Amino acid sequence: MARIAKSPRFCCCLLSVVFVSQFVERVCGVWPLPQEIQQSAESSGLSPQLFTFTYSQDSAAQAGCSVLDTAFKRYFSIIFPDFTKDALHDMWLEPKAFVLSVSVKTRGCDGYPDEDSDESYNLSVSEGQAVLRSVTVWGALRGLESFSQLVYRDDYGAYFVNKTEIVDFPRFAFRGLLLDTSRHYLPLHAILKTLDAMAYSKFNVFHWHIVDDPSFPYQSRTFPDLSKKGAFHPFTHIYTQSDVMRVIEHARMRGIRVVPEFDSPGHTQSWGKGQPDLLTPCYKGSKPSGTYGPVDPTVDTTYRFMERLLKEVKFVFPDSYVHLGGDEVSFACWQSNPSVGKFMEKMGFGRDFTKLESFYMESIMNITAALNKTSIVWQDVFDYHERPRSQYVVEVWKQGCYLCEMRRVTKAGLKVILAAPFYLDLPIPTQNWARYYGVRPLAFRGTEEQKKLVIGGEVAMWGEYVDATNLNPRLWPRACAAAERLWSNEEKTLNADLAFPRLEEFRCELVRRGIQAEPLFVGHCKHEFNGL
Amino acid sequence: MARIAKSPRFCCCLLSVVFVSQFVERVCGVWPLPQEIQQSAESSGLSPQLFTFTYSQDSAAQAGCSVLDTAFKRYFSIIFPDFTKDALHDMWLEPKAFVLSVSVKTRGCDGYPDEDSDESYNLSVSEGQAVLRSVTVWGALRGLESFSQLVYRDDYGAYFVNKTEIVDFPRFAFRGLLLDTSRHYLPLHAILKTLDAMAYSKFNVFHWHIVDDPSFPYQSRTFPDLSKKGAFHPFTHIYTQSDVMRVIEHARMRGIRVVPEFDSPGHTQSWGKGQPDLLTPCYKGSKPSGTYGPVDPTVDTTYRFMERLLKEVKFVFPDSYVHLGGDEVSFACWQSNPSVGKFMEKMGFGRDFTKLESFYMESIMNITAALNKTSIVWQDVFDYHERPRSQYVVEVWKQGCYLCEMRRVTKAGLKVILAAPFYLDLPIPTQNWARYYGVRPLAFRGTEEQKKLVIGGEVAMWGEYVDATNLNPRLWPRACAAAERLWSNEEKTLNADLAFPRLEEFRCELVRRGIQAEPLFVGHCKHEFNGL
Repeated sequence: MARIAKSPRFCCCLLSVVFVSQFVERVCGVWPLPQEIQQSAESSGLSPQLFTFTYSQDSAAQAGCSVLDTAFKRYFSIIFPDFTKDALHDMWLEPKAFVLSVSVKTRGCDGYPDEDSDESYNLSVSEGQAVLRSVTVWGALRGLESFSQLVYRDDYGAYFVNKTEIVDFPRFAFRGLLLDTSRHYLPLHAILKTLDAMAYSKFNVFHWHIVDDPSFPYQSRTFPDLSKKGAFHPFTHIYTQSDVMRVIEHARMRGIRVVPEFDSPGHTQSWGKGQPDLLTPCYKGSKPSGTYGPVDPTVDTTYRFMERLLKEVKFVFPDSYVHLGGDEVSFACWQSNPSVGKFMEKMGFGRDFTKLESFYMESIMNITAALNKTSIVWQDVFDYHERPRSQYVVEVWKQGCYLCEMRRVTKAGLKVILAAPFYLDLPIPTQNWARYYGVRPLAFRGTEEQKKLVIGGEVAMWGEYVDATNLNPRLWPRACAAAERLWSNEEKTLNADLAFPRLEEFRCELVRRGIQAEPLFVGHCKHEFNGL
Repeated sequence: MARIAKSPRFCCCLLSVVFVSQFVERVCGVWPLPQEIQQSAESSGLSPQLFTFTYSQDSAAQAGCSVLDTAFKRYFSIIFPDFTKDALHDMWLEPKAFVLSVSVKTRGCDGYPDEDSDESYNLSVSEGQAVLRSVTVWGALRGLESFSQLVYRDDYGAYFVNKTEIVDFPRFAFRGLLLDTSRHYLPLHAILKTLDAMAYSKFNVFHWHIVDDPSFPYQSRTFPDLSKKGAFHPFTHIYTQSDVMRVIEHARMRGIRVVPEFDSPGHTQSWGKGQPDLLTPCYKGSKPSGTYGPVDPTVDTTYRFMERLLKEVKFVFPDSYVHLGGDEVSFACWQSNPSVGKFMEKMGFGRDFTKLESFYMESIMNITAALNKTSIVWQDVFDYHERPRSQYVVEVWKQGCYLCEMRRVTKAGLKVILAAPFYLDLPIPTQNWARYYGVRPLAFRGTEEQKKLVIGGEVAMWGEYVDATNLNPRLWPRACAAAERLWSNEEKTLNADLAFPRLEEFRCELVRRGIQAEPLFVGHCKHEFNGL
């Protein structure tokens, strides 16, 4: 029997996209907002004892599918947090069976999500059953997440889900989140927790800015000295090969790609400790000053080292993308070094060091291309040479007119990722989530072809002031604002006032799931962090 | 045998106050900086098995002293985190006994700290022993904290403490921290954890802004409807009498006073839900608008209610101070209400509503005076009538020229607490700890008598954007900057650059003790939050 929930949890309705039947008081939302969602007030009770996930007969994925079997286990606990075998919440209700059947069109349970992965899904919830259809297992994961957000409890603790129809797909294929594990080391548990929260918000790329000037925590099998000498601590503050595999598998289970960044030629001070001849010796007058600058782009040993390192990276990280950095190279040290000067002369670069940097980046990108990887670079690389010789993806990070840059990059025919307005670590008022929500990534003048080159956006959490103590409240729920911008239809989600109560509700849901998501404003959650 | 630690932990020395022997490489600090500290490089090894806290024969406090017995237990775990009965860290060293003997001049193990409590102590650490002398148990607690910060470990995990002489006392008697449990409910565990961290920084007043407009979580025995109807949730989001007692006892054990604030006549919207005729009905034209304003100061029932409530407060909270609020009263509702108008006329207040507010506050302060309590009020109360009729303590909170206000208040002969520059919840760059460190509370023109009226300062963590998810990283280590300003000699602690490495070291110590204290800048701690 379909019945009206006696006391639906507090939540808001997005009237413009919600079908309101005559019985409804309030209906509940999904964050980020699905492309199309229709909900009615008719609800089904859910009994943990009689709830089943199943594969439909026509599904290409069946029992034994690692990604979905694991997701069923995970989402059962999320949907029914208080479930124990003995619990019988519905003592005074006749418990009814509910089946969520999943149908996936293509196989791929053992693969990795990638840039072309289809994440669309359709979800139809009616009395006693829900049908989830998707092209890939990754789309099925997105649908399971949406279903888990539809389930709510009344004041008696009973579970309900309203009749709902969802047609959903992401606006952008690349919805990234950057963590910086060099300026502060982030313990594995902090990274895994972030991946959990990313999945709740439908982020799908973990951009692992794994090394930088301050430390080199990646334990390379080819060059073990890099972390041995370049990490904050050679045993405790490193990521072993096994740690990295664990991160990649945890991410895969959630449909999240792991794109590592090995930023060079700048931001490499920590590399120099374990790889002595890699960096450029800086000069004071005619003598070496004892300090080092960016990677030395004038010697063959550099390229042989980078090739071996990138070969290892290709082997360890399955994603087809690799981030090569290329940002913020200071030319002062190169300028001071006489053999760099000779090289410049030989190459005919004059005194234009941007040409030297471009020469270096082109060489590195040739290495990755030969390894069959797509390179992402920070916008500096494009800015030096707007007529790119090779195909690469540009990440726009500089504050200021980032839309102007988007226009230039796409005009040059390159794919682009927008990070500039999503720098969540910047020391601005931390509560200002609407600032991220109001970003319009395509609001530049350009052709349809240009707009298609915008493959997505990325939240950046740089590590100068962030470690495991404050990572989560800084990220969540502000990153959720970006998540909705990158997943949902912009026309339906422009109004931050309408989004506010939905986001408040979602942040309480994150808190309930153990994510330390900070409050948006005065109020409370039924479950407070770490319990009452 | 005294020996040099082979690998003292990284820490900085404050050379100006440290005695550097010829053997020392680095010596370690205490936060906040003691008034006088002399350290040498000679160190004693400490073995958990052979370490003893003891009461010296001449001590007024002896075994059975609740405050110190509990402190010995607590600090043993803090000093020796890895101690188990079977552990024997010093297998290759001959373990030596170490005795820390405590001598307290006056009894008072079962009392509460108060405004006149003497917190001074002398600590003398030499080979195999330390002697801690204080006037009160509260001073002994401060000395135990300092001792715990002196102990360090070498790379083999062995414990050491250097020969040290400390003469110490607080600069200000009132070193407060405000938590706001109305805008967001803070679970008991969050409050207790904050008290722990306060003790590490030698804060000594917990200002509990327990109720306000959004919610009334204090469960009153006299007026149970206040929380039943005014809390976010009548059972989960409240502080029972037992909760309050637990907070007070937890604080007492750490030498921390608990000063509750029952802010009126403004900031009382939540009170009105459980106490129907308390608030002023606002009018629109000649009719009640259905909304309510501040407490109605024109009716006797208000004062009878406040008297009964404050009688309960006196009974529940042992501290001699009670905070009565009095800030940010909007006069619009009073202005709109015809019977308030008549009352104004009768009292000869004209249209000056500051007189009405003063009339109300005077009456409430008379009630607390009759209950033998000292009133603290926000500066608004003083600003309305700079010639106070009664003695009260003014808390300066308004941004702008807070030192001008300090001068005015002390000129009027009133005691004052400075909170304005210590609003840690304000949405400014969160990493800017030096801003709090640079505050100079006495830098106003005034007589010595006036300066003596500055009894201290207070860190304020308002709750608009803060709950259990982000409280700790927002408070710590920034509040530590204020703690040193309020405890230490200003002349020796004006330089933030010198303080920086000491504060970095102390924040790692807080992290080690389980406090989610955020990083100051790029770097790492030996122990990361929640483990590696």
